[in-house]
Amino acid sequence: MLKAILFDLSGVLYDGDQVIDGAVDAIERVQDTSLDIRFITNTSQKTRQRILDGLKEMGFSISDSQVYTATEIAKQWLEENDRRPYCLVHKQIREEFDELDQSDPNAVLIGDAGEDFTFANLNRAFQLCQQGAVLAGIGYNRYYSQDDQLMLDAGPFIKAIEFAADTEATILGKPSETFFEQVLATTGAKPEEALMIGDDVFGDVEGAIKAGLQGCLVRTGKYQQSDEDKISGDFFVAGSIVDAVEHALKQSD
Amino acid sequence: MLKAILFDLSGVLYDGDQVIDGAVDAIERVQDTSLDIRFITNTSQKTRQRILDGLKEMGFSISDSQVYTATEIAKQWLEENDRRPYCLVHKQIREEFDELDQSDPNAVLIGDAGEDFTFANLNRAFQLCQQGAVLAGIGYNRYYSQDDQLMLDAGPFIKAIEFAADTEATILGKPSETFFEQVLATTGAKPEEALMIGDDVFGDVEGAIKAGLQGCLVRTGKYQQSDEDKISGDFFVAGSIVDAVEHALKQSD
Repeated sequence: MLKAILFDLSGVLYDGDQVIDGAVDAIERVQDTSLDIRFITNTSQKTRQRILDGLKEMGFSISDSQVYTATEIAKQWLEENDRRPYCLVHKQIREEFDELDQSDPNAVLIGDAGEDFTFANLNRAFQLCQQGAVLAGIGYNRYYSQDDQLMLDAGPFIKAIEFAADTEATILGKPSETFFEQVLATTGAKPEEALMIGDDVFGDVEGAIKAGLQGCLVRTGKYQQSDEDKISGDFFVAGSIVDAVEHALKQSD
Repeated sequence: MLKAILFDLSGVLYDGDQVIDGAVDAIERVQDTSLDIRFITNTSQKTRQRILDGLKEMGFSISDSQVYTATEIAKQWLEENDRRPYCLVHKQIREEFDELDQSDPNAVLIGDAGEDFTFANLNRAFQLCQQGAVLAGIGYNRYYSQDDQLMLDAGPFIKAIEFAADTEATILGKPSETFFEQVLATTGAKPEEALMIGDDVFGDVEGAIKAGLQGCLVRTGKYQQSDEDKISGDFFVAGSIVDAVEHALKQSD
């Protein structure tokens, strides 16, 4: 019996600034049920406020408290662990970390920094880790989709620094089991009573399955042909959020 | 009974433009024996000619035919496999690939591109691999030493693209077993009769051991404290090339 649905945002509800066909209605449908609904995103190119504003503009009925971002989880983790981070993140979210002491860094935080992934910045991240700073990542996504092109996300750069400095990053956000647990703790659902719907076969679907949730892959957003063959485990494949919601509601009646 | 010695160059014979103490004499000593001597380098910031000129200027007696560079091995591999590469390499070695058709790439070659590791260039490498181009790397080194600082080498960037495009790179140069075999084939030595001397515990020493050679780690160049604890297997640890050569000659008498 399904009790909660977790939705990824980009690629599931919208693609760039285009709403996925039927997505607004699909969200309205699930919001009208007794299911716990959460929206969880690794996007690190936008602040929480810009994400919420964007959803509103596109016509989605989503309350602030339903949205969980990896960026905020990362900030919280840095605070709780008394870390002074060197933030290699996108200029559009840099302000989110303004309150933190960033002098004499004892941590490196890597998000999707886009054009700021320069040799100099990556080398600084590496040197700090080599000198003992801990490495943290906002998600571990390999790529995202933009204007019908796949673009490198934070994951490959986190991987590069892990390899160079012979270390393992703490991943905040998906596919970290801790993140799924944190979000589920705000619902009444056990892992097996929750369904994660996403377009990232690794970060969303594989991550959810490993954390004990049910997984659903949508063939929109960054989805590439044969993605479903890249991971093992049982999961549902849906044409889009519309079919995914249909599938979910069948299990909750 | 030792029959051949393979030397890494940077960090073993010299560090930046400084000759390692005693290195010129140590090379002279081994050149005066009946041992087969080879010099093998993954350096992809200099052409073969610049490497040879540098060695000469520093006073080393080394013949052209004793030097093997990963850059040349990479070029040879591209030619043999009819590959049209997108070369993400240092501007100082770009000319080495001028003869190759680089239109409509069906391969991505990553060397130590330094400042040319931009988001745009890495993204292009990723997109090509995602579309089916094969990935090749000039070495797989994690970092190199420059002015007493460790700097990111090609390895972490190769790793990043491997992860993003879910592929495995063909590594030309160390630590590829094929490379060690190719170099040894030019000598009269079997793998177990050859000693590899290097400052990179992974690329030089671990690579050599895996290829069946003897390994010797020198505590110069990029060597960092406790590097010897990072790999398993039997190998000799020497203060510098001077002790390494002493150790080698004891085995060849």
